[in-house]
Amino acid sequence: MKNKEIRLHSRPVGLPTDDNFDFVETELPPLQDGDVLLRSLYISVDPYLRGRMREGRSYVPPFAVGEVIVSGVVSEVVESNAPSFQPGNIVVGYLGWRLFNVSPARDLMIVNPQLAPVSTALGVLGMPGLTAYFGLLDIGQPKEGDTVVVSGAAGAVGMTVCQIARIKGCRVVGTAGSEEKNKYLRAELGVEAAINYKDDNVGQALREACPKGVDVYFDNVGGAVSDAVLPLLNHGSRTVLCGQISLYNLDKPDVGLRPQPFLLVNSALMKGFIVRDYMRQFGEGMSQLVAWFKEGKLGYVETVVEGFENTPRAFIGLFSGDNLGKQIVKV
Amino acid sequence: MKNKEIRLHSRPVGLPTDDNFDFVETELPPLQDGDVLLRSLYISVDPYLRGRMREGRSYVPPFAVGEVIVSGVVSEVVESNAPSFQPGNIVVGYLGWRLFNVSPARDLMIVNPQLAPVSTALGVLGMPGLTAYFGLLDIGQPKEGDTVVVSGAAGAVGMTVCQIARIKGCRVVGTAGSEEKNKYLRAELGVEAAINYKDDNVGQALREACPKGVDVYFDNVGGAVSDAVLPLLNHGSRTVLCGQISLYNLDKPDVGLRPQPFLLVNSALMKGFIVRDYMRQFGEGMSQLVAWFKEGKLGYVETVVEGFENTPRAFIGLFSGDNLGKQIVKV
Repeated sequence: MKNKEIRLHSRPVGLPTDDNFDFVETELPPLQDGDVLLRSLYISVDPYLRGRMREGRSYVPPFAVGEVIVSGVVSEVVESNAPSFQPGNIVVGYLGWRLFNVSPARDLMIVNPQLAPVSTALGVLGMPGLTAYFGLLDIGQPKEGDTVVVSGAAGAVGMTVCQIARIKGCRVVGTAGSEEKNKYLRAELGVEAAINYKDDNVGQALREACPKGVDVYFDNVGGAVSDAVLPLLNHGSRTVLCGQISLYNLDKPDVGLRPQPFLLVNSALMKGFIVRDYMRQFGEGMSQLVAWFKEGKLGYVETVVEGFENTPRAFIGLFSGDNLGKQIVKV
Repeated sequence: MKNKEIRLHSRPVGLPTDDNFDFVETELPPLQDGDVLLRSLYISVDPYLRGRMREGRSYVPPFAVGEVIVSGVVSEVVESNAPSFQPGNIVVGYLGWRLFNVSPARDLMIVNPQLAPVSTALGVLGMPGLTAYFGLLDIGQPKEGDTVVVSGAAGAVGMTVCQIARIKGCRVVGTAGSEEKNKYLRAELGVEAAINYKDDNVGQALREACPKGVDVYFDNVGGAVSDAVLPLLNHGSRTVLCGQISLYNLDKPDVGLRPQPFLLVNSALMKGFIVRDYMRQFGEGMSQLVAWFKEGKLGYVETVVEGFENTPRAFIGLFSGDNLGKQIVKV
């Protein structure tokens, strides 16, 4: 049976381009005992994958040149050599950017298509949802009445953070890169103020939007937006480092305003994390996300690109902010 | 009765100079009920006071121009209108840079001259000791076998941190500004490596001294030394922001290597603090410091400048690293 996969052809320098990716026809390997054959339905493209395309230490080991790219993929079981899955089941796992994957069943989680559209297993009811949940609640420790600033607020994680912060009774201020996104944040997610970092004077807009300073800063973006937040940090504030998308395509050290003096005088905390740090609590987190989802308190938006062949382009588009909410590829 | 005090004459621009201070003869106010009259014995000069000489937000409100400078002062009770103190008692408190102070008794703590030289109430058995204790143990969370890097290791706080980290079974690497200081750190405090940030290639020396990376970074200095530590931070590492002495005389924003990317990929924490954050636990902290001191596990060094008139110069000398251990003025 013929298959097709997308490999890392070369390491990107700066913004990734089509040339960094290779489409290769391959043969499907035979199913071993415990394996399932999967047809890809939805592929997740995520900013953090840029880090894995770089040599050297990041969250996880880098992709090797010539290797298939791996990310979250929602798939349908076509054939099963494992008792736990039947053909027709929908599953999610970290899988190759392939039309079909053969995977050990133990690496997969079942997706309930009755609960929500199955693509949400890549977004609000998947890793981005859990990332928002644990980052905001465990590191951010939001209290009722706190001012929470979210950078990259119109992305998959950012939107979920805005909503959870609202559920916790916080005043939420978001930044995003277009007026369309900011309209959405104000109208649909109940954020107090939404700032366009491309057009507005971010420093002044943030000062006006946060007259009582910033208690929690949930940072997906880094760079100049963070520089503008630092002078507003309150005593005892918590900065959650979830991503630094503005820096992922930098091929030199990131130089800018050092946050240490601001953290020092405010007894303030800054902490990085990756959702995997909370693996043992995934069950608890997912139950809460599902409960809020069923109660109608947690919405989501997806930007869907159609066609397996457009996967690299959907990924590249993340860095110009093409997506509102979760960017996925419908295979 | 005639008195003399040192006032802030003008706000320093860059490194403070003698001109920023004024010596003024004053009259002693009469003792109110509950007051004591104190003769100053030892005055503490501390880097953080530079922050209070600047306008705007820091740990504590700024000194007003024309106001007396206040810091930790060990004094002898000369006269008492309070039942809790007798003439001859030794006390410590935040007091004016004066030959004599009149103070409410409730703002003072008694010092036991049997336990240790009374000047240690400004150092290892005072605020610097408590600063080291809570910053290292509460934020740094050192575990046996951890590599702990201490910048400004030959200062009052830094030395205490080095020793507590050794008590906790850590491998300690210090940075300081002279070979004399580093000899002391190696010979007397049992640090594994002591790096001269003025002479050595700090990045390379740190890499060699920390082959397993850095688990705890206790930072008194900031700037270039911190930039060199960032690439060595381990997964889950803790950076304790205690001071940023290299920056205190900067009169523009501090621009340099942003730590966020390093914290992000390592799920690492960075937190500022001030010892006052732990006020409710001072009793517990002091008991432990005293116990270690009595067991001979916690030593100290003082650099003593003689003469009240040399107080400003002793303060200014902190920024060129004139002091080994705690810098005090013997009045």
